Amino acid sequence: MIAQLPSDWSLHPRLEKDTVAVCDLALSRILVMNDANFPWLVLVPRRYGAIELIDLAEHDRTTLMAEIAQVGRALKTLTMCDKLNIAAIGNIVPQLHVHIIARRRGDAAWPKPAWGHAAPLDYDQRALARLVEQLRDRL
Amino acid sequence: MIAQLPSDWSLHPRLEKDTVAVCDLALSRILVMNDANFPWLVLVPRRYGAIELIDLAEHDRTTLMAEIAQVGRALKTLTMCDKLNIAAIGNIVPQLHVHIIARRRGDAAWPKPAWGHAAPLDYDQRALARLVEQLRDRL
Repeated sequence: MIAQLPSDWSLHPRLEKDTVAVCDLALSRILVMNDANFPWLVLVPRRYGAIELIDLAEHDRTTLMAEIAQVGRALKTLTMCDKLNIAAIGNIVPQLHVHIIARRRGDAAWPKPAWGHAAPLDYDQRALARLVEQLRDRL
Repeated sequence: MIAQLPSDWSLHPRLEKDTVAVCDLALSRILVMNDANFPWLVLVPRRYGAIELIDLAEHDRTTLMAEIAQVGRALKTLTMCDKLNIAAIGNIVPQLHVHIIARRRGDAAWPKPAWGHAAPLDYDQRALARLVEQLRDRL
């Protein structure tokens, strides 16, 4: 890892544009993707310059796994989904980010992955605000 | 987690059919996907009944993250790829498995995710054997 000050990190503009912030955990900022097709969260480790999981220090990777589990459990309990889909892809937005998507049999892309298989669907703003609130209560 | 004997675990038949085995790490069996479009590995934690990441005990999740990093580093060094794509999806094959795919700008699905965006391509058997051998040397 490149030496860094914590203040060097900022959220990538594309993630800023496509999401709503939930909260910050010890390592990651938690976001909700603006796509009502799926309850879709994104974890962004606040580490300047990280692109790949292997760019993180080992203790950050361990923390990230714990936060993935914490957020995954909250999302599963909240949505009673059939399957969690968890991924670090980053072919378009390079800043390291981890998707956690609550999938349901018969949803807009099932059984395919969510990326690129369904046009994003606008949220009802009250439904989005309620999801964010419920996540804040649980995280 | 359900109480289990180590001997209860076996590889899901679909993963058995679609892959070639590389080796066993402390937790995971490492496989190469039979698709020459991408150098594509799969890690399968040898834990009976695990479907979600959150089904694993915390110490197994930490080990899995370390093995993802170890395998990801080996694959990146070997392929000099542009991006690693790492994911636990499991909408079709329920047994917990983690994909680690070496992606290159201009490959068969770039910049889309690899799943479902390119028909699988048969390997030249010598190229596949060489990849497996190189991975064994590094893991």
